Amino acid sequence: MSDQLHCFDADILHHFVEQVFIRLNVPLEDAEIAANVLIEAELRGFDCHGLGRLFPCVKRLRRGLINPQPHIEINWLTETTGICNGGNGLGMVVGHRAMSACIERAKHFGAAFLTLKRSDHFGIAGYYSSMALEYKMIGIAMTNASPRVVPTGGTSGKIGTNPLSVAIPRKEGAPFILDMSTSVVSSGRIDVLLRKGEKVPEGWIYPTTKPFLDEEGVAPMAVLQLPLGGSKETSGYKGYGLGLLVDIFCGALSGANFGSRLASSKSEEMEANIGHFFGAIQLSGFRDVTSFLEDLEALIQDVKSSPLESGVEKIFIPGEPEAEAKEYHQKKGIPILPIVLDKLRQIGEELEIDISYL
Amino acid sequence: MSDQLHCFDADILHHFVEQVFIRLNVPLEDAEIAANVLIEAELRGFDCHGLGRLFPCVKRLRRGLINPQPHIEINWLTETTGICNGGNGLGMVVGHRAMSACIERAKHFGAAFLTLKRSDHFGIAGYYSSMALEYKMIGIAMTNASPRVVPTGGTSGKIGTNPLSVAIPRKEGAPFILDMSTSVVSSGRIDVLLRKGEKVPEGWIYPTTKPFLDEEGVAPMAVLQLPLGGSKETSGYKGYGLGLLVDIFCGALSGANFGSRLASSKSEEMEANIGHFFGAIQLSGFRDVTSFLEDLEALIQDVKSSPLESGVEKIFIPGEPEAEAKEYHQKKGIPILPIVLDKLRQIGEELEIDISYL
Repeated sequence: MSDQLHCFDADILHHFVEQVFIRLNVPLEDAEIAANVLIEAELRGFDCHGLGRLFPCVKRLRRGLINPQPHIEINWLTETTGICNGGNGLGMVVGHRAMSACIERAKHFGAAFLTLKRSDHFGIAGYYSSMALEYKMIGIAMTNASPRVVPTGGTSGKIGTNPLSVAIPRKEGAPFILDMSTSVVSSGRIDVLLRKGEKVPEGWIYPTTKPFLDEEGVAPMAVLQLPLGGSKETSGYKGYGLGLLVDIFCGALSGANFGSRLASSKSEEMEANIGHFFGAIQLSGFRDVTSFLEDLEALIQDVKSSPLESGVEKIFIPGEPEAEAKEYHQKKGIPILPIVLDKLRQIGEELEIDISYL
Repeated sequence: MSDQLHCFDADILHHFVEQVFIRLNVPLEDAEIAANVLIEAELRGFDCHGLGRLFPCVKRLRRGLINPQPHIEINWLTETTGICNGGNGLGMVVGHRAMSACIERAKHFGAAFLTLKRSDHFGIAGYYSSMALEYKMIGIAMTNASPRVVPTGGTSGKIGTNPLSVAIPRKEGAPFILDMSTSVVSSGRIDVLLRKGEKVPEGWIYPTTKPFLDEEGVAPMAVLQLPLGGSKETSGYKGYGLGLLVDIFCGALSGANFGSRLASSKSEEMEANIGHFFGAIQLSGFRDVTSFLEDLEALIQDVKSSPLESGVEKIFIPGEPEAEAKEYHQKKGIPILPIVLDKLRQIGEELEIDISYL
């Protein structure tokens, strides 16, 4: 598929995204962070959470619904726990700041956690959890999101696809990075399928829902999704329970919006007030790190030693498919759908950015 | 169903279980704790994790594979994290001790976590997470277990049904208690279905597996199970990823057994060396507790306000079905399957316990 699409060097796309944010009054350092997150999503193969997520940011910055220069406030209420008010900044900027603070704090106390309010969409959860890896820490990141997942037994969207991510260092190879929506799939994956004109597989969305894209090229909240596990018979209430859990950690715990109130994140008139939750935990606080890494490798090799299903080449550990995608995209470039490319060029023209290289 | 079965008062069953443990040289205080956990499982409707789990405990205590009077050692390596060596004790006793220590520690530092090695099956994860509720804390509990869940793409059981539980206080009504295996269902639910002579629903077990019970009346590890999410197409790799995550926190992080090595937990010759992970986090470390509880209630009422599917009476929050079951069983008694009752009586006779009331 990629061969039929325009492919761009990650650095070029990064530069473009950074310029967009700078033109919208985001300080250089923050523009760089925001671009890092969106381009990292593309590199890891989360095309559903990459450049496509630039458009709502641009729209909301222009309308004054996101503050390009937020006052981000962190209050530690115990040695290890606290709350961050994101000042209605870009989710990527707020998220990066809060996760950095957790890591710094965990160096002293073994673990640290922040719940966040007054943030906006932050891109891929795995970006923030991964920040802990170089410090030999476990990283945790979650966010709530616009209501589109149906609670088991109900018929309307009440919670978001509410992703959670946990990143754990490995001795070698790609780190363990679980980065998953608590619905069967993220809404972004449905967006990408529909943009390509493909059919949404059975089991991804609520049975009576007809999938479609709005004028922004994304599936609106009306495209109802099923929680991980699907129907009640196959334990969909577990995915629903996990999604609700994420909303409690990100919404009720911080005072951000939650549940139906998160329609705010799609509103054209109010701040999103999305909530996140971050954590960092030192590995050495439990066990000698070398012994842990060796045992983790033994566990992984054990899992990989399973006989394979027909047609399967290998068993992946969470994070490995994304690491392979990143290597590929760094070498071959990042493929961009025509519909996305057109919008990037349009934004570039409107903001008077040099787009000759796009 | 319950009406056709013998029902027993929870206190009577508790007394019996306590006596069994005492006869097997478990100190009174620990016998009481172990009985609490098993009877609480029955009360909450986890009949798959209740009295049926007494039998392997009895067998392993008798064979010297579990130490009835373990030396349980807790080492805090940072303010908030540490490791517990369970001394090969009963999982319920080890788990209770470690969770209590986390709660005590979290009072001082906002949060505290222990990874555990050298433990045995601990019953329901939700018992331990719930211990945090009365202290207005979030409770976390996980355990690894015997390998019977197939990693996505593989054909053999490499990880356990590895449950995780998170408990969160509520203002009123049943607390939020998510208590779920990371497979489609727990193996205990398959045991119970098979004991009743019922069919295992599609999607619960690996497609080529024929379900059966061993001479102990439980589905052996050969009855392979699917991770939450089922096949790759419906995101079974997320359930597999969660299960692997639990094994990392409980096994690799503590030095307990993990993956295939957990066949030890079914061995008749060696200690199980099962691993657990516990945590407690103060709510007040994030936000004024009253405001949190009010927002949580608003979130819950929002979810419950969804229109209902035909035939559905209400939308449940995790923990509510179990709270309703507990109320019912406290009033009407706990129904015991004949096959379980026979085994209880047999154990009672062998240990010379008065079983006239059974």
